[in-house]
Amino acid sequence: MSEGPKPVRIGLLGHGTVGAAFADLVAERADAVEAATGRRPEISGVLTRSEGDFGEILERSDLVVELMGGTDPARQFAIDAMRAGRPLVTANKQLLAQHGDELFGIAREAGVQLRFEAAVAGVIPIVRTIQESFGVTEISKVFGIVNGTTNFILSEMAASGASYDDVLAQAQELGYAEADPTDDVSGADAAAKMAILARLAFHTPVGLSEVSYEGIESIQPDDLAYAKELGLSLKLLGVAERRDGGISVRVFPCFLYRGHPLAPIEGPFNAVMVEAPAITEVTMSGPGAGGLQTASAVLGDVVSILAGDAPVHETRAELPIVADVTSSFYLHLEVADQPGVLARVATVLGEHDVSVKSVVQRGIGDDARLVMVIHECLESRFAAALAALGELGDLRAPARSIHVIEEEF
Amino acid sequence: MSEGPKPVRIGLLGHGTVGAAFADLVAERADAVEAATGRRPEISGVLTRSEGDFGEILERSDLVVELMGGTDPARQFAIDAMRAGRPLVTANKQLLAQHGDELFGIAREAGVQLRFEAAVAGVIPIVRTIQESFGVTEISKVFGIVNGTTNFILSEMAASGASYDDVLAQAQELGYAEADPTDDVSGADAAAKMAILARLAFHTPVGLSEVSYEGIESIQPDDLAYAKELGLSLKLLGVAERRDGGISVRVFPCFLYRGHPLAPIEGPFNAVMVEAPAITEVTMSGPGAGGLQTASAVLGDVVSILAGDAPVHETRAELPIVADVTSSFYLHLEVADQPGVLARVATVLGEHDVSVKSVVQRGIGDDARLVMVIHECLESRFAAALAALGELGDLRAPARSIHVIEEEF
Repeated sequence: MSEGPKPVRIGLLGHGTVGAAFADLVAERADAVEAATGRRPEISGVLTRSEGDFGEILERSDLVVELMGGTDPARQFAIDAMRAGRPLVTANKQLLAQHGDELFGIAREAGVQLRFEAAVAGVIPIVRTIQESFGVTEISKVFGIVNGTTNFILSEMAASGASYDDVLAQAQELGYAEADPTDDVSGADAAAKMAILARLAFHTPVGLSEVSYEGIESIQPDDLAYAKELGLSLKLLGVAERRDGGISVRVFPCFLYRGHPLAPIEGPFNAVMVEAPAITEVTMSGPGAGGLQTASAVLGDVVSILAGDAPVHETRAELPIVADVTSSFYLHLEVADQPGVLARVATVLGEHDVSVKSVVQRGIGDDARLVMVIHECLESRFAAALAALGELGDLRAPARSIHVIEEEF
Repeated sequence: MSEGPKPVRIGLLGHGTVGAAFADLVAERADAVEAATGRRPEISGVLTRSEGDFGEILERSDLVVELMGGTDPARQFAIDAMRAGRPLVTANKQLLAQHGDELFGIAREAGVQLRFEAAVAGVIPIVRTIQESFGVTEISKVFGIVNGTTNFILSEMAASGASYDDVLAQAQELGYAEADPTDDVSGADAAAKMAILARLAFHTPVGLSEVSYEGIESIQPDDLAYAKELGLSLKLLGVAERRDGGISVRVFPCFLYRGHPLAPIEGPFNAVMVEAPAITEVTMSGPGAGGLQTASAVLGDVVSILAGDAPVHETRAELPIVADVTSSFYLHLEVADQPGVLARVATVLGEHDVSVKSVVQRGIGDDARLVMVIHECLESRFAAALAALGELGDLRAPARSIHVIEEEF
């Protein structure tokens, strides 16, 4: 083999869980890569926090793989590598969500490929699918579960009835959640991934700051219990869709009816759906993370670069972000168990053109809970109805609301 | 636009449902294709059964799209087109399943791309995923629901309790089954698709004749009713997997436990799972057919060809077909309702080392039904046990058996 064709030298930036798994995988699959592409990969240099010199690694590489995470110094290294003519593979969602326009522009100028399958949804080939299979498809919506940590937590809460805090602690013990889980549970991690998917699906620049997000920290076990009665299961969804001539890109906890293709996705899994008139819908699911799985997606990108040329993402539209969109809602009210309360609540909702799809009512001591699903309406109108309910004086606690995808399958 | 870059001229062979939808889609998405690839597509000639001359169409084309179906004359046209230096896109599963070695060889010799996403699983990008994302992954198993007609029929039989014949007639009325449904219901259509997927996944030549298949024609409504009690749902599965140093590629009706990722796939949908140590598993689902959906997959291939070079599939192994593999089974016995029958049946099974996972027993008049799920065992051993049961003299009807995937999720 050493007498064979010139190897492809990979400069590896970062040697954490994913970086180490990638280095191992390159060694293990070198024969297969050579068989598939005619070139044998080898790691020619590794940059860690304490060792290695970026300039030297760049010099001795044909291709750079960035697995450091964070944007500083990853951004500068990425820029320097591409300007030096090296194709770049990265798993860094923050880098692309925050600096996508700059990095794609530099890749096009330099005439090098920039690939990033591992940045979104682990081993699910959603980036390739949207960019290549559906590259000229008029995609109407991309949405799904793009954070495995929160999906594990919500699945466990629903299954066990335990509180958010208890399940989070359990997820941390099992290694599904980090010591500081903020990025995952706040929805920020999912927001970065949705910024990338929205950009690719709609060919429009989407910055991380344009993605609104809401996390799962305030989900209560009784919300999940009531939802079960209503036939609903809870997911943290990322949703990017065309709306009213613009787009909406958001992350929020959302109830789904049981027949929905995303409803059976449990545990630390990811799943993404793509909708378009020409394809109807495609759903893809798989494990959300894991060092080996992520490394595998990175290696797939390396092989694609070796196998041939491909265009770099380029925006071809400037679609505005539409802020006020329609949604269906779950609404949880704690009210005094007195005659007339339900009528007053219903009146307020009716005055705001907010219409009720289903209700569960149950008395608890002096209080009663009114739990309902509201038909799709403009979010601003629902918010106005909530404010008016607050002024009634009947609520014993602030109203709790959660998005619902109303579609039943 | 007419002053822009040279258009890419597409010679279209076949103008049935998919061909017509493809021609419309090319016109509709021409701007998007030009934006993505720099080249504007146009249909430069159409060959139908009654009109057009292949030689002239070839002459005036840069790329050929074959949507005629069948192998004659499609095979010769495909060969001539590639030999004339035209990249080829086809949706023709029989062509690739029967003549894959020849066609891939000619594509490599001629240095042209041969793409065929639409040949398997409709709009689900499973060909691209296996060839590109997982091109150097040691895939252990590819399996799924690759025929929408039979999935519709089985879903309806399970939901309504109706007979196979009644549901088939209904599927024909709805356009989900053809007037002559043999290809679909016998498993032959799925077998062709599995031959293609097995070839790509395992980099080994797999001919259609090496794929064993079994259809759904003899499924009885009461099998589905008993299965429901056992928590099982029935699918026609295509399974290609590594076994004992070789591979097994088969199509058969199969029961799945409720938590299995393929269990919720209902109606005329397809779904495919890919398993490998480095990726764990990925599941992809979507509509199995439809003219526009298939045309959309074809257009995706055209765009990939315009976007850049890519290697042509090449086998790099010669894996033997392993005939006798292990499986779990559902077993349905009609026996005389007399003392000792269950004991005799259990003894025979035990003598053949066939072990029972669960049983449902029910008396019906003088007869009783013994319905059980058998733990995984070599199929030859299970067949021997069945033969021995037949010799007992206790069976009122031939034993009925259906595969089961035993894994519970």
